[in-house]
Amino acid sequence: MTKKSKEGLSVKKEENFSEWFSQILEKAELIDLRLNMKGFMVFRPLAAMTIENMFKLFEEELQKKSHKPTLMPLVIPEANLKQESSHVKGFTPEVFWLKEIGKEKLALRPTSETLYTPMFKLWVRSYRDLPLKLYQRGSVFRLDTKATRPLIRTREIIWIEAHDAFATKAEAEAQVQEDINTTEKIMHQKLGIPFLAIKRPQWDKFPGAEYTVGSDVFMPDGKLIQQPSTHLMGQKFSKAFEAKFKNIKGKEEYLWTTAYGPAMSRILASIISTHGDNQGLIFPFCIAPTQTIIIPIYNAQNKNKIIKESNKLKEELNSIGIRTEIDASEKRPGEKYHYWELRGVPFRIEIGEKELKTKKVTLSTRNIKEKETLSIKKISKLKELGIKFDTQLKEKAEKFMKERVINSKTKKEMINVIKDKKVARVNFCSTDKQGEKCAEIIEKEINAEVRGTLANKKEKATGKCIICGKPAKEVVYVGKSY
Amino acid sequence: MTKKSKEGLSVKKEENFSEWFSQILEKAELIDLRLNMKGFMVFRPLAAMTIENMFKLFEEELQKKSHKPTLMPLVIPEANLKQESSHVKGFTPEVFWLKEIGKEKLALRPTSETLYTPMFKLWVRSYRDLPLKLYQRGSVFRLDTKATRPLIRTREIIWIEAHDAFATKAEAEAQVQEDINTTEKIMHQKLGIPFLAIKRPQWDKFPGAEYTVGSDVFMPDGKLIQQPSTHLMGQKFSKAFEAKFKNIKGKEEYLWTTAYGPAMSRILASIISTHGDNQGLIFPFCIAPTQTIIIPIYNAQNKNKIIKESNKLKEELNSIGIRTEIDASEKRPGEKYHYWELRGVPFRIEIGEKELKTKKVTLSTRNIKEKETLSIKKISKLKELGIKFDTQLKEKAEKFMKERVINSKTKKEMINVIKDKKVARVNFCSTDKQGEKCAEIIEKEINAEVRGTLANKKEKATGKCIICGKPAKEVVYVGKSY
Repeated sequence: MTKKSKEGLSVKKEENFSEWFSQILEKAELIDLRLNMKGFMVFRPLAAMTIENMFKLFEEELQKKSHKPTLMPLVIPEANLKQESSHVKGFTPEVFWLKEIGKEKLALRPTSETLYTPMFKLWVRSYRDLPLKLYQRGSVFRLDTKATRPLIRTREIIWIEAHDAFATKAEAEAQVQEDINTTEKIMHQKLGIPFLAIKRPQWDKFPGAEYTVGSDVFMPDGKLIQQPSTHLMGQKFSKAFEAKFKNIKGKEEYLWTTAYGPAMSRILASIISTHGDNQGLIFPFCIAPTQTIIIPIYNAQNKNKIIKESNKLKEELNSIGIRTEIDASEKRPGEKYHYWELRGVPFRIEIGEKELKTKKVTLSTRNIKEKETLSIKKISKLKELGIKFDTQLKEKAEKFMKERVINSKTKKEMINVIKDKKVARVNFCSTDKQGEKCAEIIEKEINAEVRGTLANKKEKATGKCIICGKPAKEVVYVGKSY
Repeated sequence: MTKKSKEGLSVKKEENFSEWFSQILEKAELIDLRLNMKGFMVFRPLAAMTIENMFKLFEEELQKKSHKPTLMPLVIPEANLKQESSHVKGFTPEVFWLKEIGKEKLALRPTSETLYTPMFKLWVRSYRDLPLKLYQRGSVFRLDTKATRPLIRTREIIWIEAHDAFATKAEAEAQVQEDINTTEKIMHQKLGIPFLAIKRPQWDKFPGAEYTVGSDVFMPDGKLIQQPSTHLMGQKFSKAFEAKFKNIKGKEEYLWTTAYGPAMSRILASIISTHGDNQGLIFPFCIAPTQTIIIPIYNAQNKNKIIKESNKLKEELNSIGIRTEIDASEKRPGEKYHYWELRGVPFRIEIGEKELKTKKVTLSTRNIKEKETLSIKKISKLKELGIKFDTQLKEKAEKFMKERVINSKTKKEMINVIKDKKVARVNFCSTDKQGEKCAEIIEKEINAEVRGTLANKKEKATGKCIICGKPAKEVVYVGKSY
């Protein structure tokens, strides 16, 4: 094996996506699994810096929408966890319990409804204290006993969870839509990952919720992965924790609550999968830890001069807010190109003797093959080019998604769509309890799931359910998933 | 009890510091302890936003000094924790263990040397990969069985831990000095909290370290509190984990490692204690979540006009990077003043009819009594005033510290200094093992500790040890501590 092929990817994304994904995590030095703890990962600097930039985008948007940060303990008392009965049933099999400390029974939090709701009870007295919109960034822990998978199915999840309380159901439902809008603004518009906002069937909602809206994103292998979900908790948790407020007439009512959870580690998986290619990662410009890499091209004679000019350019770019580094290592230029391509840097600038003379640098853009020249005077144009770069990534992903949602009129059509690694849009009897049997048939026969109905657009069903033939109440999306 | 006194502080800082501290945590809505988990806290928005700003200052400084972020799992395998023998002895009694999952024995990480060092072994091959300077922000967990105390002695600690690896001892020792410089630049110069950088006696070092340097900060009650500490781990951890590198001659050597740990939750305790007064919190301008609060003074006739002007001013201030809010609630102006004073906002601006006419706002500064006027045109002057504000806080704290370190020539003098709630600077036999007996005498007789010797300045001992009378090798600092 040559040095180059050892460092680069040895499989093609379109041929073996799963192996391509594993290789990229290791070879681009994103994630290390060698601590050998099932479901736990080490995030190396490239992944940690990217996640930090993702956190910033989401947090800014949440703050713009009047959310305030908080920090809850990483552990949770057993009594809190067991307060809401359907929540218990859904979550306690997945809980990491601590060894008892005297009489104290604690668990690692699997999610934080049962920490926030008792606080709402203490913090909210009247309608004047509402809405109360809070969030935290941090980890939650789920003892998933199925096969774990780096970034995608892990026992520690690095996320943001927002927990909001309202006076009315209408406001809480509006919050669910606002959360979908946050996913749209950040995950789709900024990170270039389009999604279907899908209201889950009743049998697939968050334990304790009235309903759940998930964001279904396409992986290159045609499977769906759930990204940020938002939940209308209704009054279930507030009733369990006696969290009331006095309404404008002085009468006590239970709070209406919602929860929203974008998981940075999981969204990173979609960024890698959606944008990456056979050379490696491609990071959107807006979150790339290094947005521009400068490669000085020199010989023994002109080395000092060229390094000096490279440094000047680096400082200029950093001063206008473009995160720039120089690779002045001893490697050959070609090796450097591969190294930074693998690591997903959007722009590469070469500076050598020719560039100094012409006062124009050679610019390579990660997602296209041609090189162009850019006048050093007009270097700030890289900002616009960065925006264009992100738009191109987004549009490519949108096209991929669009081509993969196929209307299916019959069960047979649906089966073919699923076989073809796509998602079927079908008429379906119901996403309430009475539809579960039809969903089970689909699950059993073709190992695909009824994901639910669009949550941000009303789609009218006209014909009959493709499984049972009863009148269809809903248009649902059926696909395989992670 | 009147409404005002119920909301404000009912004790004076100088009369009952401990109760003052508890009241401020609750009444300024910083921390909530009502989850009733010993040693765990809920950080409300005011505390969470402040801690976020503190994180940013420390992380920027660490990155400037070539540290890169990482994220380690919150849990740690038993085998890792038990790899280094003196570390085990020091930490395992304090560990939170998880219930076993099959054969897996996991604990909540009490600190992360035993996660980073095995990674160093994998990531470092030769001297070319060095130095390797990494950090993470996150929580660590210590099952302290003594009395816990909010922010100060907690079971979950919110901190940054930096872990660095070097080729030589000299570089590692230089890193310890760089860490002291980071504490100086951020905690002292930015947050206004001066400290003594103290090399701990051998009997008081971090379990597994060659030596430890702590930052001793004065609390208003005269006791010392340890703030960021930095440790020369030497080759102890690298030997335990077989973490080697090839030196320039191709020979294998063990890495030299260091660790540095600024705890945000604990530094917040010092910010509150050092700067706060009997009206409440005083936040340094540089980290105050709200740097300026605008109070519109209106009646039914001019309300709209004045709110509009207030909003204009708010936007102008936010646009030049001064975090500004308006209090347009229904409370009386006097109530609003108390509310925002309690919450430590550096500047208050009043805008009423008079201010609109004269185009000058009334400005109150949190740490002084007089009001002044400031032309709206020159409102950006608030930036300079913010820097001046922080300098004043810092100088006041420096004066407090200076007056509390007293040279003591005899044991009797030392006893009086300690009784007087100050710190004694004394000649002492040794901070190596052979001095421990003298330290124990001090501990037993006056319940004070030999904290150690200055780490960033050589002080020459001349006389005899004030306890045993043997020739003094060191000048040490003796005080009570948290």
